Amino acid sequence: MAGSLGRLFRGFQSFTSLPATRAQLSHPPAFFSSRTMVTLPSFLSSKPRDFSLPNSSWGPEMLRLYELYNSQCEVETEGGEKQEGSWQRLPSYNRSLKFATGGVYLSKIIQSKARLFTRNIREQGAAFEYVLFNNKEEQRCVGIFQAGHLLEGPPGHVHGGAIATMIDTVTGTHATILSGPVMTANLNINYRSPIPLGSTVLIESSLDTKEGRKTFISCKVTSTDSSKLHTESTGDVHLNKHSLSDGTFLCHIFSVSHISTL
Amino acid sequence: MAGSLGRLFRGFQSFTSLPATRAQLSHPPAFFSSRTMVTLPSFLSSKPRDFSLPNSSWGPEMLRLYELYNSQCEVETEGGEKQEGSWQRLPSYNRSLKFATGGVYLSKIIQSKARLFTRNIREQGAAFEYVLFNNKEEQRCVGIFQAGHLLEGPPGHVHGGAIATMIDTVTGTHATILSGPVMTANLNINYRSPIPLGSTVLIESSLDTKEGRKTFISCKVTSTDSSKLHTESTGDVHLNKHSLSDGTFLCHIFSVSHISTL
Repeated sequence: MAGSLGRLFRGFQSFTSLPATRAQLSHPPAFFSSRTMVTLPSFLSSKPRDFSLPNSSWGPEMLRLYELYNSQCEVETEGGEKQEGSWQRLPSYNRSLKFATGGVYLSKIIQSKARLFTRNIREQGAAFEYVLFNNKEEQRCVGIFQAGHLLEGPPGHVHGGAIATMIDTVTGTHATILSGPVMTANLNINYRSPIPLGSTVLIESSLDTKEGRKTFISCKVTSTDSSKLHTESTGDVHLNKHSLSDGTFLCHIFSVSHISTL
Repeated sequence: MAGSLGRLFRGFQSFTSLPATRAQLSHPPAFFSSRTMVTLPSFLSSKPRDFSLPNSSWGPEMLRLYELYNSQCEVETEGGEKQEGSWQRLPSYNRSLKFATGGVYLSKIIQSKARLFTRNIREQGAAFEYVLFNNKEEQRCVGIFQAGHLLEGPPGHVHGGAIATMIDTVTGTHATILSGPVMTANLNINYRSPIPLGSTVLIESSLDTKEGRKTFISCKVTSTDSSKLHTESTGDVHLNKHSLSDGTFLCHIFSVSHISTL
């Protein structure tokens, strides 16, 4: 396992020398010059789509919560200047950098077509619609998640695996912010009440403790008014291979490691 | 939670009076008569696609393991007659019955478009390719899983949530066979070594114990020669609301509750 993780993290490390702009332009269509690319229609644009921004599929509850946290990302001082607020919206893209294979051999086809699991469906609103916000001071992360009709498990309800996927996404991102690039080592999930398809839920993660390379995070999934507990996970372990000090930067790396081509 | 589960299981119960044929034909396109439906091209056919059967995207390892277990589903007696073998292949479809909403209100659009999370992508080989086999006598269930390029988490590797989804699928199906319709109550997953995209793995579940309404199941994900442990989960709890005796029948219900329209 250590060997496999080592290869993966060497892959992660290769991100650290890349500014976002280079990452964004790593897949220009070969048949366009850089000049013509400027006038491309949006569906052929090399500019990555940030999936964490609102789209027409978002319902009122999703939009309301997005505005609630987004409005706290930037505050205006008395002098009228803008400065960072208590929350930070985390951008979200849908694919790995072409060369970030983690040292593992993959066929060229798989490598070029790979997409992030949670962003692999083109149709807006059909699967995972979500946005993550981080509160650095409070060491909390929040995910707002609207479950689309393609996530069915029990009839009319969200699949347990889709809920686990969102918990892994929120806690994994949170652990990366806190401890640098991590791999999930353990998920322990209790399902309390099923989530109907189409509904919006709140996913909140908080730091339990850090012990050496291990970051322990707890997470709960509730209704948007926090009155109903859907799912909770306690003491999820995320394992850090290389302890790097700049968590914020690594979170950025975590985000730009997926760029959009859909 | 009990109330929510109660509504869900009333939904499940409604399956029990349905023969498979009725389930399969519950969505005839309104503009075709039953006579013209017979001659429909395959993409408009109301006959559900069984996703557990081989397709052209399956690699050699996936096919080899399929043949290994499938060849043990039927044996020939000395008299030349065929009879059930030790293993049973479990069919797999991609949607819930229209009326199986579990009593929860869903919009008509969501209800009609809902698809099983693990079968929601049309492109063969792109996401979850899997087949499940059950051994009734040994109380074991086996899943053969080929991970497509749309399941990426860490660069070049399968997302932890996609692995959790497959574990939930195998253990949930197994618990349903053993105890009747169940809901997953707990998943406790340890990730040991990452799974490269494109690879095929073996998922084996076994019964730990049954205590009242709870069915405890353990599961491990290994390389196809069982030499490398990728992931394991111990004591996953699946909660049964109504104790029904005919596990085999309910497994069938579990399967036919998803029919194909893609």
